[in-house]
Amino acid sequence: MADVAEKTERKIVVAVDEGDESLNSLTWCLKNVVSACPNYKDTLVLLFAKPPRVVYTALDGTDDDAGYLFSSDIIATMEKYSSDVAETVIEKAKRACENVDIKVEVMVEKGDPRDVILEAVEKLKADLLVMGSHGYGLIKRTFLGSVSNHCAQNAKCPVLIVKNLK
Amino acid sequence: MADVAEKTERKIVVAVDEGDESLNSLTWCLKNVVSACPNYKDTLVLLFAKPPRVVYTALDGTDDDAGYLFSSDIIATMEKYSSDVAETVIEKAKRACENVDIKVEVMVEKGDPRDVILEAVEKLKADLLVMGSHGYGLIKRTFLGSVSNHCAQNAKCPVLIVKNLK
Repeated sequence: MADVAEKTERKIVVAVDEGDESLNSLTWCLKNVVSACPNYKDTLVLLFAKPPRVVYTALDGTDDDAGYLFSSDIIATMEKYSSDVAETVIEKAKRACENVDIKVEVMVEKGDPRDVILEAVEKLKADLLVMGSHGYGLIKRTFLGSVSNHCAQNAKCPVLIVKNLK
Repeated sequence: MADVAEKTERKIVVAVDEGDESLNSLTWCLKNVVSACPNYKDTLVLLFAKPPRVVYTALDGTDDDAGYLFSSDIIATMEKYSSDVAETVIEKAKRACENVDIKVEVMVEKGDPRDVILEAVEKLKADLLVMGSHGYGLIKRTFLGSVSNHCAQNAKCPVLIVKNLK
């Protein structure tokens, strides 16, 4: 086990979402940064940002006009859908890591992906953040701006951005 | 030589400038992506974008009012300064690569760093672009916006952005 003891530990956070770009960024990272580097003992953290509940509850007015749109049934359905998406994304990402000798951890947090990602990177003292360049849906991007640009400028570690290329 | 033949070749472009952030990004890349990965045969291209000559010549009016500001002597001095900076930056970057078993190439191109970097990445069919998050001077950044954000969104390869962290 002397060999293992000599390795430098790294924590790599991969921000995954429902787009295939994030899965591509994970695959690229596994091939180019993780599996080819025997000098390092890496832990990969698959990070998924779930939409914050406040998106629904802030609009969940008590007046009758809004009530039919945001009934507790609908909120429950949206929560269930969100959890299913998280589960599917994480499962897919885990499968991509199967053939790589690496410790994989999962982190699912609610909130604006920009905040979730930056907070996770800081909390975990990540050595590298990996993400796609788009992701997080067209509508969210329109409101939030580019998540990857924001993270590249503000994350407290190096950021690797992998795009889907034609 | 069978061992060498089995390695996958990668071309890594590192955009260097006079700031120490780009040198830091080079060092991080050498430590985390290059030297620790014996499966790859990497070529590192140190890319420096020199200010375009047009910046001077466009203002090099023939009328007497402007003439004293942009005489050919001054243009020559500015060109010399720019070449000296390029040389110093490249030499520093080369020294950082000295202890790593890697082929190092140098590319100095005139132009807006955003164009120079994106064109080089495409021309060289780079597998990875490495750069700092700031760089290219406060004044240039103010006019051009973030070079790294632009490259992260538009480069035809994955982009690794390494910041100087406190």
